[in-house]
Amino acid sequence: MDDYDLGREQFRKMVGDDKIDALMARFAAVCPDFQREVVAVVGGRIWTRGGIDLKTRSLCSICVLAAQGRTNALKLNFDMAINNGASIEEIFEALFRVAAYAGFPAMWDALVKLEEVLDARAPA
Amino acid sequence: MDDYDLGREQFRKMVGDDKIDALMARFAAVCPDFQREVVAVVGGRIWTRGGIDLKTRSLCSICVLAAQGRTNALKLNFDMAINNGASIEEIFEALFRVAAYAGFPAMWDALVKLEEVLDARAPA
Amino acid sequence: MDDYDLGREQFRKMVGDDKIDALMARFAAVCPDFQREVVAVVGGRIWTRGGIDLKTRSLCSICVLAAQGRTNALKLNFDMAINNGASIEEIFEALFRVAAYAGFPAMWDALVKLEEVLDARAPA
Amino acid sequence: MDDYDLGREQFRKMVGDDKIDALMARFAAVCPDFQREVVAVVGGRIWTRGGIDLKTRSLCSICVLAAQGRTNALKLNFDMAINNGASIEEIFEALFRVAAYAGFPAMWDALVKLEEVLDARAPA
Amino acid sequence: MDDYDLGREQFRKMVGDDKIDALMARFAAVCPDFQREVVAVVGGRIWTRGGIDLKTRSLCSICVLAAQGRTNALKLNFDMAINNGASIEEIFEALFRVAAYAGFPAMWDALVKLEEVLDARAPA
Amino acid sequence: MDDYDLGREQFRKMVGDDKIDALMARFAAVCPDFQREVVAVVGGRIWTRGGIDLKTRSLCSICVLAAQGRTNALKLNFDMAINNGASIEEIFEALFRVAAYAGFPAMWDALVKLEEVLDARAPA
Repeated sequence: MDDYDLGREQFRKMVGDDKIDALMARFAAVCPDFQREVVAVVGGRIWTRGGIDLKTRSLCSICVLAAQGRTNALKLNFDMAINNGASIEEIFEALFRVAAYAGFPAMWDALVKLEEVLDARAPA
Repeated sequence: MDDYDLGREQFRKMVGDDKIDALMARFAAVCPDFQREVVAVVGGRIWTRGGIDLKTRSLCSICVLAAQGRTNALKLNFDMAINNGASIEEIFEALFRVAAYAGFPAMWDALVKLEEVLDARAPA
Repeated sequence: MDDYDLGREQFRKMVGDDKIDALMARFAAVCPDFQREVVAVVGGRIWTRGGIDLKTRSLCSICVLAAQGRTNALKLNFDMAINNGASIEEIFEALFRVAAYAGFPAMWDALVKLEEVLDARAPA
Repeated sequence: MDDYDLGREQFRKMVGDDKIDALMARFAAVCPDFQREVVAVVGGRIWTRGGIDLKTRSLCSICVLAAQGRTNALKLNFDMAINNGASIEEIFEALFRVAAYAGFPAMWDALVKLEEVLDARAPA
Repeated sequence: MDDYDLGREQFRKMVGDDKIDALMARFAAVCPDFQREVVAVVGGRIWTRGGIDLKTRSLCSICVLAAQGRTNALKLNFDMAINNGASIEEIFEALFRVAAYAGFPAMWDALVKLEEVLDARAPA
Repeated sequence: MDDYDLGREQFRKMVGDDKIDALMARFAAVCPDFQREVVAVVGGRIWTRGGIDLKTRSLCSICVLAAQGRTNALKLNFDMAINNGASIEEIFEALFRVAAYAGFPAMWDALVKLEEVLDARAPA
């Protein structure tokens, strides 16, 4: 399998079948090359690496994204973190690293996005 | 114990006796209140939290600091991560999250600082 | 009084009785520990410090938040700045520091948020 | 002509008559001095410089704004880039610089804003 | 007087005769247009504004620069803040806003630069 | 050729034979996987794209890096920009986009790094 196929498989496992198709279709509608590169590079080359387990990598990713205020990827990574086995409490603890080292306002902005993700996951 | 004493104890465990005294003395020489607040808040209130283990919290901290380019705290946290049980390979994997989500240049700048920390730890 | 009680009292003075209860309830609904730490650390340990008057501290806070683009805390701090005695013109001057030193787009994004705060404060 | 008049003329060429009046009126309603300084400095002193052509300057501006996540100015600069002769494909390539050097999430957030701009430009 | 002359006069008052000439010469040696624009825009158009006193504007500027980690301008603004009447204690309090709202590591990096400025000002 | 070989070839053209070998050796000494991913992703997948010419892509890259303050990659990209045909004046104009949209201090920090690059290139 090439990087793209590896990445697609990797995201499918972490995001779920329904959501990944919707997300990929949305990326492809705006900029097909972006969809291709995100899947191949972020999914196929980086998320497939070993060394630390998926849950830890998810918590680390959340920290990078919350520190930078990258809204769309942060929401996706909250979803993936839960799918990768992180509890809400563990996500909170990762975000307290953000509070200490990038300021409490960065954690606040992130919590608002986390709430949106949890609401969307809640059964109707 | 109050927050300050808890924080001092916590940092002592993570940084080692010699280094913590030198660091605290240096902070106190510049701005005694900063030394007090960092120890009480970052050490006593945040690092003493549970929920995720110390190694994971160190990797998350590295991600926040590398994404923001905060040099001094990044170097201290590389040191603490190793003391908290992170291998160099695990630190690399945390930094690959930074590469994917904050760009490869942020990982490059961080690796240069990691190298300085490893050199300082190497036996003469 | 401990840090939490000091912080709650401090925020109550700066935000007003109605708003602080709503804000604390909202924080607590998402992440009770975040509510506790923000009140104790940001409110109780940092906002209770002296050295410069509350209005100046509000203007400084706005500058940090606008430079970083932290939306939620920026809006709260616009509200607190007005309650701490800052005129709209003084807030504008603080934001011109942001324009010069973090770029005009950071001031633009902040002005949009300021407008929302002023609209919410306007009598119906 | 002074800086303000030069800037007004420059923005008029890049944004179009209708949009520039609406934008200036909106700035002036919030903070008249901001409107004056943005036009005089960003428009009159910086955008009137030569050295590299307008399209290249637009692509460079997009890169600065996407890397920093400055939403309002980013949307305006997407509009101006198209008016300055940049194709959507060229804007994508500029954004791939952001992906490589500030992370894929910065490009994602920018693409969402680009989509809004393109939708607003589309004939009904 | 035009913006440039106003800015040169303004910086001369805040930086001192000797330092401003050395700084301007150094800017001009690297990029004469940068020297001209910084003096005219930052000095002549922004620092000459009223509304809040110079000391408050200096503290606000320090907050923007420390939050963003802009080393060279931060050091210059520490110097100007002291010349504008800010005590070291007042600068510390401005930096505690940075600690609360952009994280303690941003204050740490700034304190290291402040120390360099104070050392350079100390009589031999 | 795979991504890595394409990237190595691409960097060789933009950096020069001597410098690229030294840089790759240095990356490999710190973290071989970083060397591999930077070459394959940044060099092989992103720099090999078409759409806009190499010089424009270099100017865009400089803008991303100066806005974020990423020192090591910024210096490398100044070097590559010159090799890709950008004149010093064109680099200045790209940096004036940074001044307008990320603040003059970001341009100042970048100019200091540009000066180091130009000094290193100057014949002895």
